[in-house]
Amino acid sequence: MRPNRLIELRRSNQTIINGWLTIPSPLTAELMAHEDFDSLLVDMQHGLIGFDTAVSMLQAISTTNTVPLIRVQWNDPGLLMRALDAGAYGVICPMISTRQQAEAFVSACRYPPLGSRSYGPARALIYGGDDYVQQANDTVLTIALIETKEAIENLEEIASVEGLSGLYVGPSDLSFSLGLAKRADFDDPRLIAATDHVLEVAAKYNLLTGVQAGNVENAIRQAARGFNMVTPLTDITVLQMRSRELVAQTRNGVKA
Amino acid sequence: MRPNRLIELRRSNQTIINGWLTIPSPLTAELMAHEDFDSLLVDMQHGLIGFDTAVSMLQAISTTNTVPLIRVQWNDPGLLMRALDAGAYGVICPMISTRQQAEAFVSACRYPPLGSRSYGPARALIYGGDDYVQQANDTVLTIALIETKEAIENLEEIASVEGLSGLYVGPSDLSFSLGLAKRADFDDPRLIAATDHVLEVAAKYNLLTGVQAGNVENAIRQAARGFNMVTPLTDITVLQMRSRELVAQTRNGVKA
Amino acid sequence: MRPNRLIELRRSNQTIINGWLTIPSPLTAELMAHEDFDSLLVDMQHGLIGFDTAVSMLQAISTTNTVPLIRVQWNDPGLLMRALDAGAYGVICPMISTRQQAEAFVSACRYPPLGSRSYGPARALIYGGDDYVQQANDTVLTIALIETKEAIENLEEIASVEGLSGLYVGPSDLSFSLGLAKRADFDDPRLIAATDHVLEVAAKYNLLTGVQAGNVENAIRQAARGFNMVTPLTDITVLQMRSRELVAQTRNGVKA
Amino acid sequence: MRPNRLIELRRSNQTIINGWLTIPSPLTAELMAHEDFDSLLVDMQHGLIGFDTAVSMLQAISTTNTVPLIRVQWNDPGLLMRALDAGAYGVICPMISTRQQAEAFVSACRYPPLGSRSYGPARALIYGGDDYVQQANDTVLTIALIETKEAIENLEEIASVEGLSGLYVGPSDLSFSLGLAKRADFDDPRLIAATDHVLEVAAKYNLLTGVQAGNVENAIRQAARGFNMVTPLTDITVLQMRSRELVAQTRNGVKA
Amino acid sequence: MRPNRLIELRRSNQTIINGWLTIPSPLTAELMAHEDFDSLLVDMQHGLIGFDTAVSMLQAISTTNTVPLIRVQWNDPGLLMRALDAGAYGVICPMISTRQQAEAFVSACRYPPLGSRSYGPARALIYGGDDYVQQANDTVLTIALIETKEAIENLEEIASVEGLSGLYVGPSDLSFSLGLAKRADFDDPRLIAATDHVLEVAAKYNLLTGVQAGNVENAIRQAARGFNMVTPLTDITVLQMRSRELVAQTRNGVKA
Amino acid sequence: MRPNRLIELRRSNQTIINGWLTIPSPLTAELMAHEDFDSLLVDMQHGLIGFDTAVSMLQAISTTNTVPLIRVQWNDPGLLMRALDAGAYGVICPMISTRQQAEAFVSACRYPPLGSRSYGPARALIYGGDDYVQQANDTVLTIALIETKEAIENLEEIASVEGLSGLYVGPSDLSFSLGLAKRADFDDPRLIAATDHVLEVAAKYNLLTGVQAGNVENAIRQAARGFNMVTPLTDITVLQMRSRELVAQTRNGVKA
Repeated sequence: MRPNRLIELRRSNQTIINGWLTIPSPLTAELMAHEDFDSLLVDMQHGLIGFDTAVSMLQAISTTNTVPLIRVQWNDPGLLMRALDAGAYGVICPMISTRQQAEAFVSACRYPPLGSRSYGPARALIYGGDDYVQQANDTVLTIALIETKEAIENLEEIASVEGLSGLYVGPSDLSFSLGLAKRADFDDPRLIAATDHVLEVAAKYNLLTGVQAGNVENAIRQAARGFNMVTPLTDITVLQMRSRELVAQTRNGVKA
Repeated sequence: MRPNRLIELRRSNQTIINGWLTIPSPLTAELMAHEDFDSLLVDMQHGLIGFDTAVSMLQAISTTNTVPLIRVQWNDPGLLMRALDAGAYGVICPMISTRQQAEAFVSACRYPPLGSRSYGPARALIYGGDDYVQQANDTVLTIALIETKEAIENLEEIASVEGLSGLYVGPSDLSFSLGLAKRADFDDPRLIAATDHVLEVAAKYNLLTGVQAGNVENAIRQAARGFNMVTPLTDITVLQMRSRELVAQTRNGVKA
Repeated sequence: MRPNRLIELRRSNQTIINGWLTIPSPLTAELMAHEDFDSLLVDMQHGLIGFDTAVSMLQAISTTNTVPLIRVQWNDPGLLMRALDAGAYGVICPMISTRQQAEAFVSACRYPPLGSRSYGPARALIYGGDDYVQQANDTVLTIALIETKEAIENLEEIASVEGLSGLYVGPSDLSFSLGLAKRADFDDPRLIAATDHVLEVAAKYNLLTGVQAGNVENAIRQAARGFNMVTPLTDITVLQMRSRELVAQTRNGVKA
Repeated sequence: MRPNRLIELRRSNQTIINGWLTIPSPLTAELMAHEDFDSLLVDMQHGLIGFDTAVSMLQAISTTNTVPLIRVQWNDPGLLMRALDAGAYGVICPMISTRQQAEAFVSACRYPPLGSRSYGPARALIYGGDDYVQQANDTVLTIALIETKEAIENLEEIASVEGLSGLYVGPSDLSFSLGLAKRADFDDPRLIAATDHVLEVAAKYNLLTGVQAGNVENAIRQAARGFNMVTPLTDITVLQMRSRELVAQTRNGVKA
Repeated sequence: MRPNRLIELRRSNQTIINGWLTIPSPLTAELMAHEDFDSLLVDMQHGLIGFDTAVSMLQAISTTNTVPLIRVQWNDPGLLMRALDAGAYGVICPMISTRQQAEAFVSACRYPPLGSRSYGPARALIYGGDDYVQQANDTVLTIALIETKEAIENLEEIASVEGLSGLYVGPSDLSFSLGLAKRADFDDPRLIAATDHVLEVAAKYNLLTGVQAGNVENAIRQAARGFNMVTPLTDITVLQMRSRELVAQTRNGVKA
Repeated sequence: MRPNRLIELRRSNQTIINGWLTIPSPLTAELMAHEDFDSLLVDMQHGLIGFDTAVSMLQAISTTNTVPLIRVQWNDPGLLMRALDAGAYGVICPMISTRQQAEAFVSACRYPPLGSRSYGPARALIYGGDDYVQQANDTVLTIALIETKEAIENLEEIASVEGLSGLYVGPSDLSFSLGLAKRADFDDPRLIAATDHVLEVAAKYNLLTGVQAGNVENAIRQAARGFNMVTPLTDITVLQMRSRELVAQTRNGVKA
């Protein structure tokens, strides 16, 4: 089976730079796959990407060595299994707040006897190789989004679920849930405390840690704090923010 | 009929800032329509955008007042009429090099007796309004891409075609055709001469002038030279270049 | 944030005329948006509309001031959040029969602390404006489909859920569930009694009331009874019934 | 090969009632195929229907015995051959004004030695049957749109092209081209004269005659004049006009 | 209502030969519908087929008398109802392991008073006919996938659920769950015992029995053992395996 | 620029085994790309594949080293340029019968000064690399379909066009055009003579030669005769023929 480069990167203590795709387009997915990301995530929760498009985006990413990930819409076994059958080498599952939710998530992603994933690897077999089913449980990443107060409180119970690969902090929802004044303010002591707790628990249970950093500076900062995987940007924000800057410059220039 | 803001902007001597869409996605089209562009062009020549997607992109642009334009794949009456029926308020036609080509182009875009456009306005009626057919010949822009040596030589013959609205310089192909060392080098005296000629002839025949500027600085510069419509950016280049910068910054930061 | 016209219409006691879209086509959605509806609902339950198409339909509706609504396929948090992220200004949720179901529905649609909606407004931000997240809880409508005997029995418990915006009667399923002889017979005393109960309870809890009227005459009649929002037609029924009439007339005429 | 019912209907002097599809949706195509049309035309000229959608619409029509037709975007051999390979049992080609154009049209639609259609029947083989290639030249209809003054002048030359199946009057474009005051006014003596001429010439060369009637009354009237095939409606007009009436009635009713 | 040929075939003790579609393409669906299958199943669980594509595939199958089936992604009422509204004449539901799961599955597929299926038959009405709602409960098949150890243990409880039509063995997942050494080894005594049990219980409760046979030989063998419905092939496996053979033969031949 | 493996294979006298894709599905394209083909052709002439789908299919092929080719619908500069911009590493153009047609074909595919291809490499840049524009003229293959009597007569004139890469025999259309009794009968002396002529002329002008072989045996035979590139199969024929065999075997077996 094609190895999962994210596992190798983590083993060698290299920070994983992940990109976040929310534009429903295989073309932009392929373009991003030619930039220097280690992995690219197709966001099927808040990105407006239907299933047919997501499959084509995974194919587009697979034209390179960039590792393809999916964030599913919800902790639902049908959705999780489809994401993996489509060839995602890791799934990020939103709103994991309890051990029971984490167990259901992991079970849907692992073949028996470890879990209850149904057999039918479809494109995963094409992408991963003929021994996909034998190796998938050890290769495919299951990453829980930690984004509620409840999740922070139940963190050890979540982290100790067998077969879970990692914890990924969603700072916007977590800020909401903690009742913080600002969303995703990484200088807020309560967010720092919560993320410190994630790092500690993950270390104890040998889990990968990730974080939605929001920008380059914070991605570097969070990597320095110990997060293995950082996401400095989403495609749609880059497109929007950069276009806004360039149009404003042109607008001002032509008026001058 | 909904008026064409580009005509009004030109009348009041304001520079038209145009955006160039090559990502086949109605979502990014809508996003760009909320930035400060005067018009957005759906590129069906070099953008990898099929017809169904292009129609949805025109709808997405039409959620705002941004003027929707299409560059067709080729000077073909069927394609030109479909672009207009789909609701484009202007079409840019590639590779217009002779008077005969310009006449064929304009004829396909104008209802009789001025031209030979076939009746069946489809979405144009929804977007433009009930009197679309009566007003379309005066409202919809027909813009010839001037991008060959031959076009520069035949410029007066092209410009004098009745019903033509504008001349738009494609500097990359024009550089190729002129045999210039670099593509789209706006400091090259031969490109300057050619574009000066476009500006002069357009002034004589009262035509709109446009140019693919490639970047903000050059857009401002070309506007100052007299071009009415400047395109400082394409969506895919913004996404690619800006992502490249941000990933490189992150990569360097996490290594430090 | 762009205000929700349905809230304003209700405040000023004007009946909301809603259209029901089941044809999976952005083109027909835009066409209908140019008719005199106050709102248009994209039916993702019984309409055969996938997610990608639904997003394009919302964009098509957004070319006008018509308010875009979605009926989701099921009371599922992932689906509800995606509908809202896609820019629906109201969701109608099928088969709400208990307080618990109503609470789950509303929670998925409201940002904390009121509910558990996850952050990631995507197109909603483009459509609604920069302060979407701050205003969404007060702007976006959550409307429960009342279509079971159980729902009628639990109506006060449902109606009193904080954050619920309205009750919408689905007379076909309700007739089924009540064991009535005919579906959606608004002269049946038991259906009248059930809908009277809906109007009373809604008045007590200050909720919007809506009803699938089925035709113009009944829409007018139900509005007169006090329903705020009436749906006189669905696109596919109009197309089918009117085409049937016209073909029959032609068939008869050409035989004569 | 599955016979072409339109040929049989004409042979038995029955009027063909044709429906016109411009909504890009396989679902509405199937729905219309269950109404009492003899044939349904997928309009790829003024209907905003891309190729992928058109193929699915042909399949949807093929769930019934309704004969599937395509109007191509332009008189282009590539487009004509694809329409036939996709399984259309007749093509209507716009803007046939000269014998040369008619010859090119027919040649692209007929296998050698009659014409130059390229071998590769694709779905036509599935729909038509194993002997499609042997029988196609006698089964598939080639119908020229007569919609210009020039076509009326060249009518005998067009009609006498071997392999041409029929003449179809496009009254809107024809009115434009004849310089008539109103579009498609079937009481205008000049339009009557032109269509009389079409009927006469078609009779002489034993061709099918068709006309875009615009409404039921006129369809019946034109059938009585001798047209074999009449189109009383298009899907999008039915949807728009009927919805407009019903919404207006509701609007008036709820105000009362 | 159009009768369900599978019911008739079973009544007359004829083996149902079912095909399994996992290629997301209406074209291949139509092609397969012209082969000699009794039914074709659109696999929305392990096949990478989105909803829009699945609807077009059902239409493509409906161009023939082949019975259209869907395997849904998961035991979810929203998904089950959509599959039926889209016109599937039977649904196969994965991972039915308990009576409660079987009851939920059947309830979602049956109109009241038998179940809780919501009214809105959409394309099912077009495909099935005007009396669809009256006849659907007796016509549409509900088939539980038996593919876990737990299901085998609970088989009588599952089989006795009123309204259930059949049991279909998924041998790959069942082998996993039983802890067998090989997947889908029909010579393994434990798989034989489990499938014998399925045949016995189904006979007792008069249920249809089906099995994923994997190849022709085993399909014939399982039919001889008493399975009513056998699936000898999936489209994608045929394409892959046969192409592999042919390319290898060519590769060897050209080297020789 | 990524080199074109077909050029290297030809240089080293290895036969190119090409596969022919007519199923409009990126999934089957990717699957085929994992079989042992040297190149895969997306057939946009007789395959029912729209542009959006074709682009996704090219991406799917590009997940491997298999060389992606396109057959365009017609000898049209707009279509040819789009195929190349989408990343095809070679285009096969139908119905090249004269030198003039060959010149137009090649010109549209070559950047100036060799030809008139317009600048805008889009996905070709992503796939090919940053120096695509500099190297494309030497890397991208232009292959003329030789499939008419006229082409055979004009073969030297066609073959001597500068910038043409190869001649590909379409035996079905060629048989039609030569008036042969059977289509693609490689034992017919007149087809043998015609193909001998192609091999000779190609040798003289140093052009690649290809042939649609139809089956494995003939592919091997034609390779032995000297054709560089042989196509033993198309995806849809494999699927159809092999399924037909397997269903017949099952049908016979269950009856026994």
